[in-house]
Amino acid sequence: MSDQPLGVRFALLTDLYQLTMAACYLAEGMAEKATFSLFIRKYPENRGYFVAAGLAEALDYLESLEFTEGDLAYLDSTGLFPPEFLHYLKGVRFTGEVHALPEGTVFFKDEPLLEVTAPIIEAQLVETFLLNAVSLQTLIASKAARSIHAAAGRPVIDFSLRRTQGTDAGLKVARASYLVGFIGTSNVLAGKLYGIPIFGTMAHSYITSFPHEIDAFRVFARTFPGIVTLLIDTYDNLAGARKAAQVARELAARGQKLRFVRLDSGDIAAISREVRAILDEEGFPEVRILASGGFDEFKIAKVLEAGGQVDAFAVGTKMGVAADAPYFDIAYKLVKYGERPIMKLSTGKVTLVDQKQVWRFFDAGGRMVRDVISLRGEQIPGGEPLLKPVMAGGRRLAPLPSLAESRDYCREQLARLPEEYKAIVAPARYPVELSPGLAALQARVQEELRHREIEEAAYHHHELGES
Amino acid sequence: MSDQPLGVRFALLTDLYQLTMAACYLAEGMAEKATFSLFIRKYPENRGYFVAAGLAEALDYLESLEFTEGDLAYLDSTGLFPPEFLHYLKGVRFTGEVHALPEGTVFFKDEPLLEVTAPIIEAQLVETFLLNAVSLQTLIASKAARSIHAAAGRPVIDFSLRRTQGTDAGLKVARASYLVGFIGTSNVLAGKLYGIPIFGTMAHSYITSFPHEIDAFRVFARTFPGIVTLLIDTYDNLAGARKAAQVARELAARGQKLRFVRLDSGDIAAISREVRAILDEEGFPEVRILASGGFDEFKIAKVLEAGGQVDAFAVGTKMGVAADAPYFDIAYKLVKYGERPIMKLSTGKVTLVDQKQVWRFFDAGGRMVRDVISLRGEQIPGGEPLLKPVMAGGRRLAPLPSLAESRDYCREQLARLPEEYKAIVAPARYPVELSPGLAALQARVQEELRHREIEEAAYHHHELGES
Repeated sequence: MSDQPLGVRFALLTDLYQLTMAACYLAEGMAEKATFSLFIRKYPENRGYFVAAGLAEALDYLESLEFTEGDLAYLDSTGLFPPEFLHYLKGVRFTGEVHALPEGTVFFKDEPLLEVTAPIIEAQLVETFLLNAVSLQTLIASKAARSIHAAAGRPVIDFSLRRTQGTDAGLKVARASYLVGFIGTSNVLAGKLYGIPIFGTMAHSYITSFPHEIDAFRVFARTFPGIVTLLIDTYDNLAGARKAAQVARELAARGQKLRFVRLDSGDIAAISREVRAILDEEGFPEVRILASGGFDEFKIAKVLEAGGQVDAFAVGTKMGVAADAPYFDIAYKLVKYGERPIMKLSTGKVTLVDQKQVWRFFDAGGRMVRDVISLRGEQIPGGEPLLKPVMAGGRRLAPLPSLAESRDYCREQLARLPEEYKAIVAPARYPVELSPGLAALQARVQEELRHREIEEAAYHHHELGES
Repeated sequence: MSDQPLGVRFALLTDLYQLTMAACYLAEGMAEKATFSLFIRKYPENRGYFVAAGLAEALDYLESLEFTEGDLAYLDSTGLFPPEFLHYLKGVRFTGEVHALPEGTVFFKDEPLLEVTAPIIEAQLVETFLLNAVSLQTLIASKAARSIHAAAGRPVIDFSLRRTQGTDAGLKVARASYLVGFIGTSNVLAGKLYGIPIFGTMAHSYITSFPHEIDAFRVFARTFPGIVTLLIDTYDNLAGARKAAQVARELAARGQKLRFVRLDSGDIAAISREVRAILDEEGFPEVRILASGGFDEFKIAKVLEAGGQVDAFAVGTKMGVAADAPYFDIAYKLVKYGERPIMKLSTGKVTLVDQKQVWRFFDAGGRMVRDVISLRGEQIPGGEPLLKPVMAGGRRLAPLPSLAESRDYCREQLARLPEEYKAIVAPARYPVELSPGLAALQARVQEELRHREIEEAAYHHHELGES
């Protein structure tokens, strides 16, 4: 996309308050280390798990974060900032450490998927970008995994680019859906950038630009004999299927073959059965049926339950914007400053204090049974720790796995998650507990906070006493 | 963001089928001009109008579209494309013409907001990017305009960046919401790139990093005396309001002032009344109340109906992802090829044939009354034509209006749209008719299509006769 490192392009892609708070910390000499925890507070309807994604982008950003002269000149032009703060920003780099769930990890609400520890200015400055990057890819990975589950082994392809929320989303949707098991995408740039297989053949406009449908089919078959998929619903699915069979015969005569026909409209369950019968009757049982048009996990499940004879699904807009749950209640919360564990109590949004670890327990068959969230230093015997140290001193500790490796890991993760948590509608709630150490600290800090509120009131009373 | 022209970065940000179709057209020597029409097929629930946005990005892309050597090398590596097609792509530029609704125009379903006429390969190649760009900004502009309406004159600010669907969306949401009347954004990069005013002060983490809330307030007031907004809900809204008043007194003693307090949780209608009473009682009737936290047009309307004393709203995630309708049923359809008007009939998704114009009628007070969609060449007396020629020969005909100019134009557009179409829930349906010329052509082409299907069947029968 560009040879400029990501951070250099995106240092200003942040909320203004990150900069005003940073200036206050600098003015006050507040430079102690802070830990922020990134987690999802609630399950959207019909969601029973999440899939972590976006870490690669987050680390790229952290490693290359830098304000350019142009950025600083812009900030100066706002007239808001003291010169010493702009001078500080010029030299600022991310020097902290990161613990994170590897991309492709299945996780649950309240479990941190990322914890950042750094001098408070740095840890705070990166909040907006980290949330943006991690929330989008995790949102889409978690949504797309449901299509994989619904398709029950049939290949699924991402066709969402035209209606994703922008270009970055178009790329990240292709990446996140591939991560969870899609076989590829229509998005050519995602193919180039991420090495994802690309798919696509023809639109209705192509068919209608020819006087006869079969001529459109024949031209395609001649030009791309290796990937022939014919879109057969432009005029009439069944007539289209017969013409496709004719083209299949012509291909066969040249030692080539028709791979797929594509259905894009109407009652796919019923039409696919009729088209299957025609293709079989015409002698092409090996030609497969690809369905597209408004698919997501709900429609895939419905079509298959209704006996649809569909061999592969192209999933578009509804997956690409996570239409039924287009955002997460995701947060990046201060949990420790210096040696002080921090909690915010207001309005039921209780956060889990301090640096943490997530431990997973499996049954004898290797299936996930329950998780425990602990303090980072605690040992939870029998559990497998999920958060890994991935960055220290602002540098990643090791290269991340390749996307292909993360995809294999994610497949295994999803296989180990029992069916009841993967149900498309009203999945079961996976058990997540707090460790004794975390529960005790959580209770102690809540108690202290209540005392502090009293103390605050006293302090406030004292302060205002003179007014 | 980058010095590379947009098109150079994004030529591959397209669906693979755009390239396979292009290769077929090239192989067949199909180079006639095609017109594609971009329009929205359906109103999402509770939507009564749309606001056009994204044209500037669309034209930037069209003017700079170019495949790089790297792009071509990648396409070559797929093994799909004939060398003569890759050679053709190397030289391809967009040479066509564009008619479009200016950004900020209010429009309705079925009305084209963009029509592209170009040699069919070019017009087809650009489909994916144009849809992506126009659909996101139009989606957000149409959603954000509803917050403006609900806020009834109170300022509204975009706070969505952290949870928009990616970085491009973060920028485009700031731009599109400003276009429709937001006063600014928290997004600093959007401020730099688009000249949008930026807003923001402090988060809860800032407050909790200090031992006492009032110290956090005081440090902010000292560091940014010109923009003091204090977040007062971290521990207790009412105690926070009293502390804010104390800081206001301290500011006043220095000849400075507290501008806003911010409420971010709880029952905003009730809390804002209590906070208002405290601020008034403490002698600060001029200190205003900013509310944030889960706002969109629905919550704004609810809080104001419940008597909330809120002076400004910060609107975040739900606007930034258009949460209640996160995509449009938006399409880019072939409507003319060569001299032939084109229509696709399947499954009720009837498109309007040929090149078109949209005419708007106003009442004596300048309020919108009804629209007529016509053929482009028709004259509709008394109507104002909305689609403007903006590009010819691949070059824009004139500089587009500035964002500030488009914002003024949009304000006027929204003011001329009668209230019943702006209702937050169940708005009335604005009347849109077809002109006599378009209705007649539409009927004729439908009739011809029916005949063609019969002819297709006969052709097909003839073709298959030998098999």
